[in-house]
Amino acid sequence: MKRYRNGEIWDFEHEMPVVGQEVILGLDGGTTSTVCICMPVIPFTDPLPDPVPVLARAVAGCSNHNSVGETAARETLEQVMADALSKSGSNRSAVRAVCLAVSGVNHPTDQRRILNWLRDIFPSHVRLFVQNDAVAALASGTMGKLHGCVLIAGTGTIAYGFTEDGREARAAGAGPILGDWGSGYGIAAQALTAVIRAHDGRGPHTMLTCSILRALEISSPDELIGWTYADPSWARIAALVPVVVSCAEAGDPVANKILLEAVQELASSVKAVVQRLALSGEDGKDSFSLVMVGGVLEANKKWDIGKEVVNCLSKDFPGALPIRPKVCTFYSVSNTSYVIWQSFFSFLFFHIYINPCCFS
Amino acid sequence: MKRYRNGEIWDFEHEMPVVGQEVILGLDGGTTSTVCICMPVIPFTDPLPDPVPVLARAVAGCSNHNSVGETAARETLEQVMADALSKSGSNRSAVRAVCLAVSGVNHPTDQRRILNWLRDIFPSHVRLFVQNDAVAALASGTMGKLHGCVLIAGTGTIAYGFTEDGREARAAGAGPILGDWGSGYGIAAQALTAVIRAHDGRGPHTMLTCSILRALEISSPDELIGWTYADPSWARIAALVPVVVSCAEAGDPVANKILLEAVQELASSVKAVVQRLALSGEDGKDSFSLVMVGGVLEANKKWDIGKEVVNCLSKDFPGALPIRPKVCTFYSVSNTSYVIWQSFFSFLFFHIYINPCCFS
Repeated sequence: MKRYRNGEIWDFEHEMPVVGQEVILGLDGGTTSTVCICMPVIPFTDPLPDPVPVLARAVAGCSNHNSVGETAARETLEQVMADALSKSGSNRSAVRAVCLAVSGVNHPTDQRRILNWLRDIFPSHVRLFVQNDAVAALASGTMGKLHGCVLIAGTGTIAYGFTEDGREARAAGAGPILGDWGSGYGIAAQALTAVIRAHDGRGPHTMLTCSILRALEISSPDELIGWTYADPSWARIAALVPVVVSCAEAGDPVANKILLEAVQELASSVKAVVQRLALSGEDGKDSFSLVMVGGVLEANKKWDIGKEVVNCLSKDFPGALPIRPKVCTFYSVSNTSYVIWQSFFSFLFFHIYINPCCFS
Repeated sequence: MKRYRNGEIWDFEHEMPVVGQEVILGLDGGTTSTVCICMPVIPFTDPLPDPVPVLARAVAGCSNHNSVGETAARETLEQVMADALSKSGSNRSAVRAVCLAVSGVNHPTDQRRILNWLRDIFPSHVRLFVQNDAVAALASGTMGKLHGCVLIAGTGTIAYGFTEDGREARAAGAGPILGDWGSGYGIAAQALTAVIRAHDGRGPHTMLTCSILRALEISSPDELIGWTYADPSWARIAALVPVVVSCAEAGDPVANKILLEAVQELASSVKAVVQRLALSGEDGKDSFSLVMVGGVLEANKKWDIGKEVVNCLSKDFPGALPIRPKVCTFYSVSNTSYVIWQSFFSFLFFHIYINPCCFS
């Protein structure tokens, strides 16, 4: 097995005793953070324990190669898997399968590249599965069933849908340069732009100016330019979404307009997927699951973006059944409780226990 | 004097005989390319020769730190100055003044940072001047007079204005994340977005799909995502503007809409500057120079973006006098003719001969 080129990531394995318990790694890689869990292999014939045991959980930063570049994305994925194994007192020789759900997997070439990275890390008998994180997000709301539509709106945004007969379609998810305006990044970039436009006379005065300058601890809109380009991270910009929501709730028309446009954008992504897959049937009234995941769609105090998206969609698709997956608590073998999205588990269960032939 | 940390950029000086002729370096740094000229010092009391002699000209890539980062921008500036000196058979001990007009200089901290870089390269008696490239662009149309308004629309865009009593104002120029939608980058990013939206069902079919895929030699819109984020250069995206113009000329409604919106954006930048400085007087009818510079504003076959911007502005400001500076031919001491924008010369002359007290 490969030893990491800096000779550090896998160093812990030299001090680790050989363990007998076989494990599975499940990874949810987003544009803000990446979480890897290590869980024991449960025999295929046994009933699934409830709750499911988790040996360890590790967290790292962005693993979307489109945001941070291939080298950084690869290092993040490798580091978070090594951390999860190390924390669980295990090592690579105990791994039976690796399930990766990563944002930025848009094309078969992305999938192949990540599979090649994994092949370089794990021996050939380890089963590997790589998908867009939207697939895990859908499974998290439908308890593993890949049927329906999912809308993710966190730092990035994507709508993904599957039919019962296995057809799939997606909309958006192309990153901020290619028009993901309903994403957290899109909303925050529009707000920053509104501050610049108010400052140079192209746009109306807005409450966003004071609120954003205060949040960033800078004194003038001119300094926003340097702040914006000092760090290419999408997540850093998207972190301003709560400021925009607060201004909208306080009645600022500019912030309100930005959020209303984001709602239209998010709804149009779902519409495109539902229409292409005919998820709502011929008369447009069939019911289908609409899983909604991500910080932008979480319930806010007054201005609830997710609720507005559902209102907007229910006119066209009265059969849409919105599901906001809950964050679940799972126990670890060391009796520490972990708060983890259902998505990892549903995703792992779908691919390893329900539909194991999917492995590549 | 500092020797470059890689020990390469200034190596040529060791093999260069000491020359007696004092020189001036003039540099126009844009987001696509950076040009540096080396010219002899002409005694302040002498009449300016016509045409002005150029000892050497060197060209490099992007020097906008917001686009390529500070390290790369600094290396580009240093390399292009060294190349111009080397080509002219001169070295740093002959330099009397350095005049830099660089895009991305938005705040006094940007100016100070670049001055510090220059102070690290040149001895303390060398006079230094650092400004946004819009200042040089304005001077190029007004023959050195800093009065009126300039609109640059190349890879980036900015509007900059000066009153006769020295007040100044700017609009836009905050880069693509902060809403420079009229820029070449903005136009091309909208076109790429239109291709993605047509592909995933969010937008109408457009001729841009075939034209852009052909130009980039890729086979599917899905591959656009990987292409877009493979390289963070703004200039690489902006290079697609001619494809958008061709599609608009061929009658594509999506491409036409993108260009019409860019015209509105560019006009609104100029309006904001003219209104803040009251360049058109109290009744809005006073005449003022409107210098227009950059690839996006150059005359196209049928769809002339610059002409549309002028049409749009002339309704509000009938006194606007559009000037599109010409590219000039200057002779070099080795009898090679150089094709160079007037801007360097007008800028140099303004700061060194007309208003030498400006030096910091």
